[in-house]
This record gives sequence, structure tokens and C-alpha cells, in this order.
Amino acid sequence: MTSEELFRQIRRKRSFLCIGLDTDIRRVPDFLKHLPDPVFEFNKRIIDATAAHCVAYKPNTAFYECRGAAGWQSLAATIKYISKEHFIIADAKRGDIGNTSELYARAFFEELGADAVTVAPYMGEDSVKPFLSFREKWVVLLVLTSNSGSRDFQTLPLADRAPLYEEVLRKSREWAGPDRMMYVVGATRAKAMAGIRKMVPDHFLLVPGVGHQGGDLNDVARYGLNSRCGLLVNASRSILYASSGPDFDVAASDEAQRMREQMDGLLQKYLPGIG
Amino acid sequence: MTSEELFRQIRRKRSFLCIGLDTDIRRVPDFLKHLPDPVFEFNKRIIDATAAHCVAYKPNTAFYECRGAAGWQSLAATIKYISKEHFIIADAKRGDIGNTSELYARAFFEELGADAVTVAPYMGEDSVKPFLSFREKWVVLLVLTSNSGSRDFQTLPLADRAPLYEEVLRKSREWAGPDRMMYVVGATRAKAMAGIRKMVPDHFLLVPGVGHQGGDLNDVARYGLNSRCGLLVNASRSILYASSGPDFDVAASDEAQRMREQMDGLLQKYLPGIG
Repeated sequence: MTSEELFRQIRRKRSFLCIGLDTDIRRVPDFLKHLPDPVFEFNKRIIDATAAHCVAYKPNTAFYECRGAAGWQSLAATIKYISKEHFIIADAKRGDIGNTSELYARAFFEELGADAVTVAPYMGEDSVKPFLSFREKWVVLLVLTSNSGSRDFQTLPLADRAPLYEEVLRKSREWAGPDRMMYVVGATRAKAMAGIRKMVPDHFLLVPGVGHQGGDLNDVARYGLNSRCGLLVNASRSILYASSGPDFDVAASDEAQRMREQMDGLLQKYLPGIG
Repeated sequence: MTSEELFRQIRRKRSFLCIGLDTDIRRVPDFLKHLPDPVFEFNKRIIDATAAHCVAYKPNTAFYECRGAAGWQSLAATIKYISKEHFIIADAKRGDIGNTSELYARAFFEELGADAVTVAPYMGEDSVKPFLSFREKWVVLLVLTSNSGSRDFQTLPLADRAPLYEEVLRKSREWAGPDRMMYVVGATRAKAMAGIRKMVPDHFLLVPGVGHQGGDLNDVARYGLNSRCGLLVNASRSILYASSGPDFDVAASDEAQRMREQMDGLLQKYLPGIG
């Protein structure tokens, strides 16, 4: 998907919601357990219930890999089921030497058909570049994550006093423009987001950490929005497990709609002209 | 596997060779292609031909994931086929927020049965720790890799002038001792290895980059060996593809034996007392 098309979907739906399909088989309701692929069945119902409220889906590969080959089948079936109108991020946090990263790119872009893959920056340019050679496919690079461990290395001051994550931004924005690269910035880091937005004014930011992890959507919008929205805000557990009963899809729809309405309000407030 | 047992295998075989099972289906000889799982058949023959010469195997997950669920089946069959005497490293370079890393740990330790997983440090302590709560299982943390991109971030000087990778060592050695944690240090970085060895005198180092990438085994031994060997040196392509014909397994055996003999000589030279 192009950035133009993504922005079109955001304007059409009045939403910049990304739903994290972090589907834990232990939390799939019992009445789906007798079906051949309960995780896919759960995802299918979540997708049907939320498709009108979100512009992106983000399955995290760990939730599928922990079930081996069967898990990969659930992941493949899920991605195939999502409409072409939604931006699909394989949240895989990969990154390896060049010829190996190229195989990961093939796995996620060709074998699975995702639009984007999350990539960890530690191994540098040649670990990221192979993901950038596929047409209309994206890298979502980890910059400043929402977890406590982000303070161990990401925020360490370098010799020039700037934190490591700023150097990741500085170098990586030379590798691809805002039509091929996004950045992960945790919602728990809303204030750092203002500085990040200055460094990459035109890029989309993928923002996890709203909800369970304590990030505030109003702050994220205030510091992160740009003239073409430039935000995808992710929610996973708060939507997937809004109810643990047979009405889980209705509850997920309600929660996704609630977030969409909040986002609509924020778009009206900060970007009244986008129509 | 415990570090005691790994050292015992090294002494018994006079080898610290790790073979990277980076099996590219495009390079599997034609005469195996009609079998139901050509990648597994290739690996099986490589393992049979090299088991006496190495102490570890390291399949890189990218080579399997690029074939989807079928690839995971090849990977699972390969790991199952390797004897309990060999240390098995899933070269996956994973790392995510805590509850998600825990699922990756289950995938590689429980679902696949590997002894160790390579982990990327960028997300910090809570992304690494879940891999450390499995009995006799190991984290192999990326520290200073063999690729050109390692110069983008890993060697950046921090405010105290020490490079980032030293801070990764300094923090992570608090997370687990040398019986649960190893470090990836590229063979192309043999001189930095002397400094790394001072910081982590007792840990095993997993060393890729000998052979195709230009690292020298003599330098690695000189700077990296400790009193209990403390090295696993990896070779992948130079062994797997020593011949592209039907004699590929014989050629792989010859090349693995050549490396084992070189390692035997280095053990005699630097560690004459280990028996």
C-alpha cells in the first residue's frame, strides 16, 4: 500500500487505529476451540467486527510462532482474510545480515503478503535495506519502544549527548523516505515524540502502548500528528479481550468504535482541513 | 545443555565448531528435490556427515520462515534429528516486550526444542529476561556482529566514550551468568574480542564470520579462548556448499574435518592442559 492510499483510508474512516492481532490461544473462547483453526476463527470474527473502525492490522508473529507450523498457518490465513483496504504490519522485529534479512523480507512480503514488517536497528544499514527493495512495502523501524527496557540502551546519551534513538532516526532517514519507512514510538514516550516529530516531520509513527501500558491518546495526537495524520495508534488486548465471553466480537467492535470516535475528535481538533 | 556438558563435548571432540544450517532451498541439489522435504533431507545428510566434527548446530530461522509453514516443518524436523550431544542454537535474533518475548521463548525452547536462541538487545532487559527462565536454556545476545552495519550503532561512542556494544555487555552480564548467556562477536572483530574477553572472561562467545566474511580463526582463538574454551566458531556456507554436486555431504565432511583439525591444533597450542 502507498502512503497516499493509507492517508485516503484514514480520511475516509476518520480513524488512525491499528488493531494488534496478538491472539493468545489460551484466551480464545471455548466455543471456538472445536473448530480446525481456533486462532484464525477468533481473528476472523475480530476482523469482521472491527474492519470499519481501523485502517491497519498488526499481527505479532510471536503469538503464532509459539504454535509452530500450525501457528504459521493461522497467521497466513489471517493475513489473507484481511481486506486490501487495510494496511497489514507483520510485527516480527527482525533484522539480520544482508542476505538473511532478504529472506525475512521474502517471508513477510511474498510468502505472507504483509505491507510492512517491524525491524530492529541494532545490526545497522545492511540489515534493514533488504526490506526496502520490495515495491510498495514498508519497514517499521524500532526507535523508542513502550517497555521499561527501552531505558537500557535506546535513551543512552551518545558522545554528542543525543540519545541513541535519535541517532537511529538520523541514520535511518537516509535509507528511505516517508513513503517506505515508519518508526515505532511508544505512547508512553509522548513527550519525546515532539522531538521525534521535528526530526522526521513527514514519516508515519506506529504507536503502541495506549491502553494496558498506560499511554494517553490525547498526548500522542498532540505531539505526533502531522498534516497527513502521520500516526497509526495500536491497541491489542483492550480490543481483543474486551470480553472473554461469546460476545467478544461485539465488545471488540464497541471498543474499536470508541477509539475511532476519539480519533475522529482529535482529527477535527488538530486537522480540521483534511475533509 | 549445561556449560559443563558443552565443555565436555569440546574436549572429547577437540572441536569448537558450530555449523550454521542456513539451508537455501535454491541450493539443494536436484537429486533431493523429489523428496517430500528436500531441505530436511539436505540437513539430515549434512548432520550425518559432520556430527563427529562439530559440537553445535545453528539453523538460522530466516531460511525456514521464507517457506512459511512448510519451512517450519523442515526446521522442526531438523532440530529433532540432531543428537542430544550437540548444542542447538536457533539463530532467530528475536526480542520484544516481556510477555511477547516469553512466547518466543516457548516457540524455540518448548515447541522446537533448541538449547539457545539469539536475541537482539535494543529493547533492553525485559525483552531478554523471559528467555532466561527456562532450565538449561540459553540466550545468545548480539553484541558486535560481523556485518558492515555493525558500525552504524554498535560501535558508536557513548557519553563516557565506551562504545555501545560494551554497554550491552556491561548491563547484560548482570542479567545472567556464563552458564545461561553467550555473546555474538563477529570474527571480523577479532581485535575488539580481546577487550570483550576482559569484560566477560568466563562467557562463551559465538563467533560467526569465519570463511566467506573474512574472519581469521587463528586471531579468533588468540583473542577469544578462555580456560574452558569459551568459543563456538560458526561456519555455514563454506561447509554446506563445499560442493554443489551429489557428493555435497562428503565435501561438507571434509571441510568440517579440516576446521576441526585446525581447532584441535589451536586447543593444543593455547590450552594444552584440558586433555
